[in-house]
Amino acid sequence: MEGIDHLADERNKAEFDVEDMKIVWAGSRHAFEVSDRIARLVASDPVFEKSNRARLSRKELFKSTLRKCAHAFKRIIELRLNEEEAGRLRHFIDQPAYVDLHWGMFVPAIKGQGTEEQQKKWLSLANKMQIIGCYAQTELGHGSNVQGLETTATFDPKTDEFVIHTPTQTASKWWPGGLGKVSTHAVVYARLITNGKDYGIHGFIVQLRSLEDHSPLPNITVGDIGTKMGNGAYNSMDNGFLMFDHVRIPRDQMLMRLSKVTREGEYVPSDVPKQLVYGTMVYVRQTIVADASNALSRAVCIATRYSAVRRQFGAHNGGIETQVIDYKTQQNRLFPLLASAYAFRFVGEWLKWLYTDVTERLAASDFATLPEAHACTAGLKSLTTTATADGIEECRKLCGGHGYLWCSGLPELFAVYVPACTYEGDNVVLQLQVARFLMKTVAQLGSGKVPVGTTAYMGRAAHLLQCRSGVQKAEDWLNPDVVLEAFEARALRMAVTCAKNLSKFENQEQGFQELLADLVEAAIAHCQLIVVSKFIAKLEQDIGGKGVKKQLNNLCYIYALYLLHKHLGDFLSTNCITPKQASLANDQLRSLYTQVRPNAVALVDAFNYTDHYLNSVLGRYDGNVYPKLFEEALKDPLNDSVVPDGYQEYLRPVLQQQLRTARL
Amino acid sequence: MEGIDHLADERNKAEFDVEDMKIVWAGSRHAFEVSDRIARLVASDPVFEKSNRARLSRKELFKSTLRKCAHAFKRIIELRLNEEEAGRLRHFIDQPAYVDLHWGMFVPAIKGQGTEEQQKKWLSLANKMQIIGCYAQTELGHGSNVQGLETTATFDPKTDEFVIHTPTQTASKWWPGGLGKVSTHAVVYARLITNGKDYGIHGFIVQLRSLEDHSPLPNITVGDIGTKMGNGAYNSMDNGFLMFDHVRIPRDQMLMRLSKVTREGEYVPSDVPKQLVYGTMVYVRQTIVADASNALSRAVCIATRYSAVRRQFGAHNGGIETQVIDYKTQQNRLFPLLASAYAFRFVGEWLKWLYTDVTERLAASDFATLPEAHACTAGLKSLTTTATADGIEECRKLCGGHGYLWCSGLPELFAVYVPACTYEGDNVVLQLQVARFLMKTVAQLGSGKVPVGTTAYMGRAAHLLQCRSGVQKAEDWLNPDVVLEAFEARALRMAVTCAKNLSKFENQEQGFQELLADLVEAAIAHCQLIVVSKFIAKLEQDIGGKGVKKQLNNLCYIYALYLLHKHLGDFLSTNCITPKQASLANDQLRSLYTQVRPNAVALVDAFNYTDHYLNSVLGRYDGNVYPKLFEEALKDPLNDSVVPDGYQEYLRPVLQQQLRTARL
Ligand SMILES: Cc1cc2nc3c(=O)[nH]c(=O)nc-3n(C[C@H](O)[C@H](O)[C@H](O)COP(=O)(O)OP(=O)(O)OC[C@H]3O[C@@H](n4cnc5c(N)ncnc54)[C@H](O)[C@@H]3O)c2cc1C
Ligand SMILES: Cc1cc2nc3c(=O)[nH]c(=O)nc-3n(C[C@H](O)[C@H](O)[C@H](O)COP(=O)(O)OP(=O)(O)OC[C@H]3O[C@@H](n4cnc5c(N)ncnc54)[C@H](O)[C@@H]3O)c2cc1C
Repeated sequence: MEGIDHLADERNKAEFDVEDMKIVWAGSRHAFEVSDRIARLVASDPVFEKSNRARLSRKELFKSTLRKCAHAFKRIIELRLNEEEAGRLRHFIDQPAYVDLHWGMFVPAIKGQGTEEQQKKWLSLANKMQIIGCYAQTELGHGSNVQGLETTATFDPKTDEFVIHTPTQTASKWWPGGLGKVSTHAVVYARLITNGKDYGIHGFIVQLRSLEDHSPLPNITVGDIGTKMGNGAYNSMDNGFLMFDHVRIPRDQMLMRLSKVTREGEYVPSDVPKQLVYGTMVYVRQTIVADASNALSRAVCIATRYSAVRRQFGAHNGGIETQVIDYKTQQNRLFPLLASAYAFRFVGEWLKWLYTDVTERLAASDFATLPEAHACTAGLKSLTTTATADGIEECRKLCGGHGYLWCSGLPELFAVYVPACTYEGDNVVLQLQVARFLMKTVAQLGSGKVPVGTTAYMGRAAHLLQCRSGVQKAEDWLNPDVVLEAFEARALRMAVTCAKNLSKFENQEQGFQELLADLVEAAIAHCQLIVVSKFIAKLEQDIGGKGVKKQLNNLCYIYALYLLHKHLGDFLSTNCITPKQASLANDQLRSLYTQVRPNAVALVDAFNYTDHYLNSVLGRYDGNVYPKLFEEALKDPLNDSVVPDGYQEYLRPVLQQQLRTARL
Repeated sequence: MEGIDHLADERNKAEFDVEDMKIVWAGSRHAFEVSDRIARLVASDPVFEKSNRARLSRKELFKSTLRKCAHAFKRIIELRLNEEEAGRLRHFIDQPAYVDLHWGMFVPAIKGQGTEEQQKKWLSLANKMQIIGCYAQTELGHGSNVQGLETTATFDPKTDEFVIHTPTQTASKWWPGGLGKVSTHAVVYARLITNGKDYGIHGFIVQLRSLEDHSPLPNITVGDIGTKMGNGAYNSMDNGFLMFDHVRIPRDQMLMRLSKVTREGEYVPSDVPKQLVYGTMVYVRQTIVADASNALSRAVCIATRYSAVRRQFGAHNGGIETQVIDYKTQQNRLFPLLASAYAFRFVGEWLKWLYTDVTERLAASDFATLPEAHACTAGLKSLTTTATADGIEECRKLCGGHGYLWCSGLPELFAVYVPACTYEGDNVVLQLQVARFLMKTVAQLGSGKVPVGTTAYMGRAAHLLQCRSGVQKAEDWLNPDVVLEAFEARALRMAVTCAKNLSKFENQEQGFQELLADLVEAAIAHCQLIVVSKFIAKLEQDIGGKGVKKQLNNLCYIYALYLLHKHLGDFLSTNCITPKQASLANDQLRSLYTQVRPNAVALVDAFNYTDHYLNSVLGRYDGNVYPKLFEEALKDPLNDSVVPDGYQEYLRPVLQQQLRTARL
């Protein structure tokens, strides 16, 4: 069985060129080549082994993280990897670690909020990892509401220092990754108090541990917050707690790009506009959307391959059974997720462009599009992470009983992924930000202010409020204009209805609070429109390769029509489409499933994932699932002995009816 | 802070008598008293400690299972607990174990399928646990499709024995709980072959391990299948694999109640009707529905209490912040789950009655209602377990970041619960069974055959196909007839549409396969109607206690109107209600949330869960969350030392820039 490709038949069925699709998925030939090379590098290095992760104790797991990080940094230096390559390396190592926060939050925070001088000093240390930093914002009592943080940074003009202090237990920092055991430094967010006045939340660079022996500095209490969800998963990370007992830092460790405190203790806002921070947010959230497509595609890859291997029912006269991927229910659950993975990939690509656009505009002091860009990234972060978390678990269920084994790769992927719905903004709180922006946009519609970017469609309110879909036959649902109009009309009408209902309240804020649930739905409708429209826009690009565009086209309409079916109530209650048209959309969806079916395995091959990265017996490239399940089982410590530890004390007395006298 | 009830204000707000509600939830005063007494017994016994479960290795965890089981059995004997009490004891110990399968599957299989003689012999051994048994049906290659099992049991007339054999690797038994390390015996399902003819799948009692020293008997290979989802969770169970190499058992170990093999090897079906097995299925699934309400209520209890403790945003001038339970989005996610927990409780109660009814009818040889009862339990198992699995994860998200900590109780509850969607019938496969039954019922509508039980409403097809909802104002949605008619019309119209679409296919089976996804939706609509109608029926019972009925009434309509909103597409596309009526339903829903809000904490107190059972820092009865989070964190082994293990080897070289020479 070794060496045989059990999925060869599936691969032969494909009607497009997988190698070309790999380039489309990666974004460019260059990106593909880098990823491909680095993924193989990681897969072939025994230090990056991870198939035993579920069998490690928390301490062993954490130690393995430290080892992997050190080894990775060593390889980066030895091989002189550039920033892109180093990033891919960390990605394919696939084990949450302090470096994620160091590079992903600590360094960007200093870049975004530090003065040039501060950047020079701290980044040169951080870039060489002479110091390791984390991002200490959240407290035990405050996460979503950053303005409510309790930690204080009080300026002491006598010594020209800030005194960082944790006044209550709920003011303890709690959650920052890399804080618990590793970071030597942190960007700490605290209320700036000077001359007796509270100026709100600002960032401060604080040293936490000795660079000599790694022990915490005086008056600092720091540790790990304990076990998190799942086995392996995010437990490789040292999320930490942190308390300050009047810890003093020099004044110049306040991040002073946006505002500063003078030697005399005067608070001076700088002339750099506050919107600058939006740039960093767009950047961070763009990486989260890209991560969503990574995680979802990984789960879909496993479920698709296994659904082609797994056979159940349908044999006649001892013949071969039906592959479960041929069941329409399986397709109806799996293919929309496959389509979503591609959809999120392309919207992520677009967000990368948006970030460049935002950065250029900032440089030119053009702040007009920033609120829209900010709302749009908040919404897309929320939409894609929610769908991905749910999608991974659905993929696990699609694998039946075997999906419940750790070695299927899906339980750990789920556990490690789900906090993305919570960190960088709770997904519901984020949609409410989108909703606020939409209500503002609707309110200004008559005022001559033209909605921009992803809200441009709202400028066509007059048309969108009264249009009716012209669909008459199933294929009409493959027309991009038809689909876009339906999604635009739905989103606009939901927003306008919310605005109307809001206007019935005397107190706007009270009305907003009362209608929160409707507002979230309107925000989601808006965000789904964005994803659909960016997928359609992608199809309008020049995409080469045999059969590639056809496949993407199918996936695009699967994504759109699946959403339409899932949220049918929205479309019907706003009169955008009729029940008859909805039923035609369903017919079209079924027909698209049939077209995708022979290409399904090749469409997940296009992700170009190594078996190391997938870490899934069910998702193996060669489909050789069953013997490998056995191999994995035999590695469990419970199988070290035939008769289990505990038999003499706890089983024999039961079976021999000697419980009365047994010492348990 | 110790000893203070941080939720006292919430409890004082309640508008009903919690003690009375506890009785309603438990089902009777007797049931309440037994549960209450046994729960306290477990909570006060240090052997049943479980808060450290996440920190145990697989081997330690498994050994703790053996200990808990032995101790429980000892206590059962010492305290002379009866069957009900012993069942509650196992329930509150709350750690999956071999005993679950011994009592829940092995013993019932023998009861249901064994002859009187066989029962006498084997049950007397099993009841005293002189033997321990498991249920070995699923194989590596076959789960859902039981008829496709490959293990063979070939009768050898020479020796009057069956030869049990595993012909291929995929024929290995794989998944049975308690098999891996504990069971001395199993009911093994295998293809019965006698006189060269294959008679399909039958059950056989096979001894697996020596009663002397617990070693596997000759020609039997058995072990554990490895780590499963999550930390702690189902890893306390020894799900196992099992292979037979021509293992011989006496002929009388075939379970012979439904059919037998004579000394000469002749296969003789008995005159006991096959439908008998339905009785056992109704029984097992009823327990699964009851478990769903347990698991969901537990998650809801944690999320509700924590949502009342947690405050975020909304403070003005340094005042106190808003409890997150006051946000309408939080209510819109949480209260329908609270309502679902109650709904599943009552439909579970009804299923218990159904089981009695089925048993009585079987005794009277009345098989008319059995197919309906069978379809209905299959559908309810699927519906309630899916909703519960999703609901637990939603509760976790409702707790923000802290829900991701193991000590919130929710990650483990999720991991241990989700396989209920897969075992005892994959939830999609089950809904397809319901759909087949519905299509049959629709096809017979004109034939004079009157639909019975939960399909009785289909007898009013003429009316239900053309009725229109009369709702004119929000409160009309509190009318039971109005709600029932809307759900009945929706379910019927969806079934009839499916039947119509099916009839367009020449080959019925091909049509069925093509329309699988629609059929599942029709089945779900039917099952939701059942739950709604049983909740409404419950309200028609005589329910005493101050304010109790009012609360249940609110929850009932929250459940129904939440479903209506969630599946609005169904209701609108089948023209059961208008968009205007849907919007009124939403208004009513919001108003019900407001009514439930002050009672929310008391409504979860009514579940009467001990802190031991909940095992959740966030769900503590006293709401003293924050200090206890700290206490838990400090117990993590990573906090044993301030400087982590691995610093010298893997961190210091990074920080000191000595990687080049470091040995990693
Ligand atoms: C794995 C992980 C890693 C993390 N890493 C870091 C890190 O490196 N650094 C760091 O500083 N932090 C980190 N965090 C913390 C994270 O940023 C917060 O948990 C997150 O911001 C959510 O805040 P919260 O936990 O306070 O949720 P809460 O705000 O308490 O949410 C609880 C519930 O209240 C609801 N809610 C809250 N406010 C509103 C509102 N206004 N309207 C309606 N509903 C509302 C939410 O929707 C949610 O359902 C991490 C968290 C996790 C889980
Ligand atoms: C924790 C746990 C405990 C268990 N305990 C036991 C035990 O004690 N004893 C025992 O014998 N077994 C046990 N099992 C096995 C369990 O009963 C099976 O896993 C279950 O029946 C599902 O079968 P499967 O794994 O073959 O799923 P599959 O049938 O392989 O399912 C894979 C996918 O195919 C789909 N599918 C399959 N058939 C069809 C169809 N006809 N139409 C449409 N879609 C289809 C499913 O919906 C699913 O999405 C246990 C399993 C678990 C996870």
